[in-house]
Amino acid sequence: MDFPETLYNLIECFKKLPGVGEKTAQRYALAMLDKDIEIVENFSNSLISTKTKIKRCSMCNGYSEENICFICSNEFRDKETICIVCEPKNIYMIEKLKFYTGYYFVLNNLISPLDGINPEDVNLENLLQLIEKQQFSEVILALKPTIEGETTSLYISKLLEGTNIRVTKLANGIPIGIDMSYLDELTLSTAFNNRNNVA
Amino acid sequence: MDFPETLYNLIECFKKLPGVGEKTAQRYALAMLDKDIEIVENFSNSLISTKTKIKRCSMCNGYSEENICFICSNEFRDKETICIVCEPKNIYMIEKLKFYTGYYFVLNNLISPLDGINPEDVNLENLLQLIEKQQFSEVILALKPTIEGETTSLYISKLLEGTNIRVTKLANGIPIGIDMSYLDELTLSTAFNNRNNVA
Repeated sequence: MDFPETLYNLIECFKKLPGVGEKTAQRYALAMLDKDIEIVENFSNSLISTKTKIKRCSMCNGYSEENICFICSNEFRDKETICIVCEPKNIYMIEKLKFYTGYYFVLNNLISPLDGINPEDVNLENLLQLIEKQQFSEVILALKPTIEGETTSLYISKLLEGTNIRVTKLANGIPIGIDMSYLDELTLSTAFNNRNNVA
Repeated sequence: MDFPETLYNLIECFKKLPGVGEKTAQRYALAMLDKDIEIVENFSNSLISTKTKIKRCSMCNGYSEENICFICSNEFRDKETICIVCEPKNIYMIEKLKFYTGYYFVLNNLISPLDGINPEDVNLENLLQLIEKQQFSEVILALKPTIEGETTSLYISKLLEGTNIRVTKLANGIPIGIDMSYLDELTLSTAFNNRNNVA
């Protein structure tokens, strides 16, 4: 298809978004032509400023415009708990629930020896320093339920052995509202192993 | 959810794309943070240059970077036919088929008296001038199969009555591969009325 070159370039840009193929990218690019120039300029500027202004918080490693993010700089949060996640966006997912009020820490990586990612490649020293400094009483591990996530969770819990810090991790089991026949065997057997008393 | 302000702005921009809601917009915006700055800059520039460089072709009214688009300026296309569409993007859909080789004309509007769009609001004079100048022998109407589209098609065919130009419109009927039980009654009755001899 022979789009004008600038339009073709914009379509290629939209195709770099996750889950966007040729057809959706064309739809997005053509929609931009119908928008007012102010909207397009704002979009263009937002892209650049997001990329240039957003950096990592020097305490939790999450996204922030400031040196310290709004969560780490919030004195009114629960000072007892820290939640470890592996991606900055996980913070927003948990914050959306509006019930966790502690602090966060974002790992740079998950331990994965097969991919050459060893414990020293994960920013664990920063984590340990933060835990020591802030004197949390509970570390909640909210990492991916994959081999890498489990390995990293186990490694962190070993590092904290001997301290009086409670190390917990999010429950694995059957997602709410899911038809059991679609579940994989590992999830189902985990749900069996993690079964709880009813009431 | 408390995203940093720049990130929040970018999410709002992505939400202006067709069919993009809060969750998809967040996904797109967060994905941008993981991209190299060159890619984001290119994206940002593409948005602006698409909006500023792409104008309407002075002959067919389609999108073009030049005064005359690459289709109108192509001497090797079929000089007998012109296809009337109601949106510039329809041209790309038809071009993709790679079998229509004639020229195009994009209407600004479809006639819709209820919305206050009368024949004089549709750029029909330009169309008539073009038809007269280029001496097409067939005008193919490829407008939307709606009341407005049908009205406009009928109006154009009336305008060309008395000339020796053949006026055709795309066939209406059952889309290929569709289960007939999902069809609306109007399409089905149209398919009956437009039935063809088998081979």
